[in-house]
Amino acid sequence: MKKRGTIPRKIKGFRDIDADLNEMRQRIIQAAAKVYRSYGFEHWDTPVLEYADALGKFMPDEETVDQGVYNFKNPEEEPILGEDGKELRDAGAKAIMEHQALAMRYDLTAPLARVYAERLWDDVKRGQIMESNARLFRRFQYGPVYRYEMKLAPGRFREFWQIDFDSVGTKDVAADAEACMILSDALQAIGLDKSTFIVKVNNRKVLKGFLFSIGIDDDEKEGAVLRVIDKLDKIGWENVELELAAGRTDTSGAAIAGLNLPADLIGKIISFLKIATGIKGRKEVIEKLEKLVAGNELAEEGIAELKKMDAMWEALGFDESSIVFDPTLMRGMAYYTGPVFEVESLLTFKDKRGKTRKVGSICGGGRYDGLVKNLLGLRVPATGASIGVDRLAALLQMANDEKVKAEGPVFIAYFDDSLQTKYYEMAKELRQAGMDVEVYCGYFKGFRKMKKQMSYADKKNCPAVILLGEDEAKKGVVTVKNLKLGKELSKTISDKKEWIAKVQKEIPMDGLVEYMKANFA
Amino acid sequence: MKKRGTIPRKIKGFRDIDADLNEMRQRIIQAAAKVYRSYGFEHWDTPVLEYADALGKFMPDEETVDQGVYNFKNPEEEPILGEDGKELRDAGAKAIMEHQALAMRYDLTAPLARVYAERLWDDVKRGQIMESNARLFRRFQYGPVYRYEMKLAPGRFREFWQIDFDSVGTKDVAADAEACMILSDALQAIGLDKSTFIVKVNNRKVLKGFLFSIGIDDDEKEGAVLRVIDKLDKIGWENVELELAAGRTDTSGAAIAGLNLPADLIGKIISFLKIATGIKGRKEVIEKLEKLVAGNELAEEGIAELKKMDAMWEALGFDESSIVFDPTLMRGMAYYTGPVFEVESLLTFKDKRGKTRKVGSICGGGRYDGLVKNLLGLRVPATGASIGVDRLAALLQMANDEKVKAEGPVFIAYFDDSLQTKYYEMAKELRQAGMDVEVYCGYFKGFRKMKKQMSYADKKNCPAVILLGEDEAKKGVVTVKNLKLGKELSKTISDKKEWIAKVQKEIPMDGLVEYMKANFA
Repeated sequence: MKKRGTIPRKIKGFRDIDADLNEMRQRIIQAAAKVYRSYGFEHWDTPVLEYADALGKFMPDEETVDQGVYNFKNPEEEPILGEDGKELRDAGAKAIMEHQALAMRYDLTAPLARVYAERLWDDVKRGQIMESNARLFRRFQYGPVYRYEMKLAPGRFREFWQIDFDSVGTKDVAADAEACMILSDALQAIGLDKSTFIVKVNNRKVLKGFLFSIGIDDDEKEGAVLRVIDKLDKIGWENVELELAAGRTDTSGAAIAGLNLPADLIGKIISFLKIATGIKGRKEVIEKLEKLVAGNELAEEGIAELKKMDAMWEALGFDESSIVFDPTLMRGMAYYTGPVFEVESLLTFKDKRGKTRKVGSICGGGRYDGLVKNLLGLRVPATGASIGVDRLAALLQMANDEKVKAEGPVFIAYFDDSLQTKYYEMAKELRQAGMDVEVYCGYFKGFRKMKKQMSYADKKNCPAVILLGEDEAKKGVVTVKNLKLGKELSKTISDKKEWIAKVQKEIPMDGLVEYMKANFA
Repeated sequence: MKKRGTIPRKIKGFRDIDADLNEMRQRIIQAAAKVYRSYGFEHWDTPVLEYADALGKFMPDEETVDQGVYNFKNPEEEPILGEDGKELRDAGAKAIMEHQALAMRYDLTAPLARVYAERLWDDVKRGQIMESNARLFRRFQYGPVYRYEMKLAPGRFREFWQIDFDSVGTKDVAADAEACMILSDALQAIGLDKSTFIVKVNNRKVLKGFLFSIGIDDDEKEGAVLRVIDKLDKIGWENVELELAAGRTDTSGAAIAGLNLPADLIGKIISFLKIATGIKGRKEVIEKLEKLVAGNELAEEGIAELKKMDAMWEALGFDESSIVFDPTLMRGMAYYTGPVFEVESLLTFKDKRGKTRKVGSICGGGRYDGLVKNLLGLRVPATGASIGVDRLAALLQMANDEKVKAEGPVFIAYFDDSLQTKYYEMAKELRQAGMDVEVYCGYFKGFRKMKKQMSYADKKNCPAVILLGEDEAKKGVVTVKNLKLGKELSKTISDKKEWIAKVQKEIPMDGLVEYMKANFA
């Protein structure tokens, strides 16, 4: 039988990020971080690995709560803690030990709740903190998150980056309104044109209040209805109606059970959801909703919040061309309790079969007033949002005509052993003038073929190559080849001599820094 | 019995990075990355989680090879691969499945070897790549690495950040010489004064050749001797001699076995190691070594490499005040094969007991020509170095008189509900003028006590607070309180009125942006 091999490979769904993709990733992160910071959020970081129970089960997509997280056993045996944070002990007063469950963080919100709870834990135990004076904490964070997804659609990964900002300890929907503006500002700073996306906003309170008023009044029923509505984007109106009614058969032939709601109830739900169809004006949508939910306290509270948010946006220059109300917006089910928001890209792309497809949702967030409760026993109000860095990078790549390439260094070719030190001296001088410069050091002498070096410089997207051989050294010159210009001109100039004359220049050695600064800095 | 609790907590050895520490971390990373990039290294990233066998067992500290890595079982069952990369099958031709071992990366070098090997794997299988034409790959990478250390000394963590650069596919020690210069440049860019650190360089080949020439000629013996020498910094000359001889008893009373080498051999080893004691001149050290190892091929090769490196440094302005040769330098044992280098901080600090202590090694690297072999079957030469980001951050904090604090935003206090929108408008204008600005949104109205707000702004290191209440609004002014100046003046001014007069200014509303720009931008 064949022997087991050690094959260089990555775990399925994990990937290496090359210089080009990293360039995109860093651009997105730096731009978004700058905007977040400008609103007063400070930069925090948390571990990639946490105790599973301290992260809780708040996966954005509820269907993957259990399978969707990378869970491992801690190799270290540790005491189990009781509700007071002290070790549990057996009859002989010995600490009860266990290899506790660890988890790779599946988002940046659950660790935030842990950070916040951990910092207040002692105060809360001493009774010094109540819900009404839980302190304000505004932070942003970026980094990889992990999802153990069984089915990996193309373009989906198990390790991907997010950049989040959150305000914990504020009940004021001004913070929610601000979050929508921050997303809009950040996406523009990242390079998206304002006309290519729209922020959609809803308030869970309004829908919950409405459902209650028509008799869907327990959590289980309500949850089932919300889950069906949440699928609207994927399955469309007709199938939503079917799933609220007797159920349907999906494209694979599988039977999907329905909720068996009475037809009049379904009618009410659908017309509530369609209330904003064709209406852009935020105030008009509010007016219509207001009439429909009049008398339900929770819904009216939600409406008041939407009104306040609308007024702030109006005063600050965010009209309906950038932020709209959308009563169908659910944003998954896991932890949102009030306003929810999502940014939809209006761009389309052609898939492999040539079919035009929408890009769809690129980021979002909402209010989650219950998240800290699990850990702290206090219902600390919070709101925030997240941008999927890698998803946005893919979108930007798609939206650009040309693939974004990281800029390479100026390249100094290796010709002659006796000139090696000279190459490094030239590099140092150019570096001191602010340029990135690489002296070729590939394998070893004898194998430093010029063709190989040029292909290396080309792949690395170097703007220029500096050539210095014995002949040049004697004449006191160097040859500079403009790779960027060369690529461009090769499209229009077919004559090799003409091309070389334009692309290659002989420069006196002592004028090299000046020349390079003028042309490549 | 008490019930199990869900306590907000982190895994031992893992920590949260707050805004101040993140400020240091990012400064270090940005500065080092800029220098690495200026030498032509491109930015790559790899997964945090990998197949354990693809990372190999190359822990820098050999003693922790097995226990030192976070190993987990992959929750996914997958086919086992044979040496050709194809699935192993049982008698019934069914793929043999297994939950394979995963590992958190323990450094950034092992994943680099995996990246490099993975990219060449197909070519190597087809026989298109040999050692002599393995392609050059120069990348830098930063991020967290993980060590499952059982004993955690103060200031040591199980998750910490590194920033590495490496050249794979070069046999030329010019790349090693360059690496030492890059470390020196990077540390200065990070903010270390050149006079506070020194790069120490050795070449494994010289020591190996020397040991061979005195009869220590098998790998096992040699390894044992190197491991003892590696402890020199920790245990001192006397104990090194004892461990080469009959052994010793350590401070805890534990017996440490000796190698039982004959006295004359120990004498030779010690005088070899002490050859550079008191000598700073690189050429003098080389001369002495040269005489001692004359006739041994490997050692002479090593000497020639040191000579080449010395000549490069001399030409490029790195004299003995920045780079020295140190024959005692080992750099652990795991994968180095030629030149090794380490940067020693010359700074000292006072520990908790008031004892003056050396900071010691802050970064290092070396040549590891065998690392890719495990995965690719080819001995591809490589060299590189690593800066311990978190360790350096701690050092910089220590070296600075004051703790580095992240700068907070300009803070707009919340006084009056009717002015809330105005607060956000002011913030927007100031933001457009380039400032970071936060409008307070803590808990909710009624709980927005001014004292709480001021303490929030103070903790967040805000430079200024803008106050706008009803009275000010009527007068068309705002009050600006200079928190920075306030802190300073509170050291010298005890009169409250005088202090307020200096720290607090009433500014006409329409002159606010100008005033803030002039004083806080």
